[in-house]
Amino acid sequence: MEFSSKFLEAAVNEVSRLPGIGKKSALRMVLHLLKQPKEHTGHLVTALENMSEHIKACNVCHNISDIDICEICSNPRRDNSLICVVEDIRDVMAIESTSQFKGLYHVLGGKISPMDGIGPDNLTIKSLISKVEIGDIKEIILALSSTSEGDTTNFYIYKLLEKHKINVSTIARGISVGDELEYADEITLGRSILHRIPFEKLL
Amino acid sequence: MEFSSKFLEAAVNEVSRLPGIGKKSALRMVLHLLKQPKEHTGHLVTALENMSEHIKACNVCHNISDIDICEICSNPRRDNSLICVVEDIRDVMAIESTSQFKGLYHVLGGKISPMDGIGPDNLTIKSLISKVEIGDIKEIILALSSTSEGDTTNFYIYKLLEKHKINVSTIARGISVGDELEYADEITLGRSILHRIPFEKLL
Repeated sequence: MEFSSKFLEAAVNEVSRLPGIGKKSALRMVLHLLKQPKEHTGHLVTALENMSEHIKACNVCHNISDIDICEICSNPRRDNSLICVVEDIRDVMAIESTSQFKGLYHVLGGKISPMDGIGPDNLTIKSLISKVEIGDIKEIILALSSTSEGDTTNFYIYKLLEKHKINVSTIARGISVGDELEYADEITLGRSILHRIPFEKLL
Repeated sequence: MEFSSKFLEAAVNEVSRLPGIGKKSALRMVLHLLKQPKEHTGHLVTALENMSEHIKACNVCHNISDIDICEICSNPRRDNSLICVVEDIRDVMAIESTSQFKGLYHVLGGKISPMDGIGPDNLTIKSLISKVEIGDIKEIILALSSTSEGDTTNFYIYKLLEKHKINVSTIARGISVGDELEYADEITLGRSILHRIPFEKLL
């Protein structure tokens, strides 16, 4: 791609570093910004700067927050004996939108992945263990995605928690509500039979 | 979508205003930026600011440029009696990459589209006509996309140029090189038969 403007080229290069954005999409976005009034670019720039400068992590659950202790952790109506371990803020948002969980979260910040150079020390696992050691936590729910990295991380945390007298559970895997059995993959279908639940529980 | 941080929410909202970016992609991009060192966001912000502040349009062809008269217009080796009319900088870049065109460009900045509130006065049509009036231009090539807006704009410019003694041409429409006839749409195939060219021209 040959550009008639160095500034345009620099902007396209920077935008195309974002995940999922190639050079052509980046050019399209940048040209869109150029067609808009300058304030639009100003708003975008200010929002990105503010985010970069002011966002911090909650001291307790490590979720993204504007304050030292996030709204979920500081809410006295939530059950602080139940902790759901998730990968990042998107998982917190997804679980919160179900309104089915009244405990607290613990955001790991990733999964153990030696291929990407992410070991246990790059995650907030130590902080989770010390929470268990000092607090009166009764149950830890592991809610990482079921990839090999997720399973490794689950197992690593499980091993560390073994000596503590708390329940460790994982979210249920099975056929999605509304899905046809014939289109389900074998592993999911197999697990859903293995982990069947008494019918009375649904009533 | 409920956010745990106002700054995060503002950044996601601004990024999702870009064309082709929904809230989920915007969140993914913003979280990617947060995971990177702060300098990355800094580079992006600086590039966007510079672009917004310093980019101008070439005084002659209205293409995006850092200088008053762009490199193509100021190049003495290009044929200034031949002008190719295009919609925006992407078309200039596409044609330039073919190395088949040695004339100059004229960037309209859009197509006549009453639905989007774009009339002839919002485009650089007047400047094109005055170029024809004062200069010694021999041919105008209309290279707009062949949509109804493109055809309207082509026809509008053609009518304005009718009284001037210059050739007005449009780029050839036909089957793409390497394409199978059976998969071509009827209009394109019909046009390619109607506008067939003597075989000797290919030799």
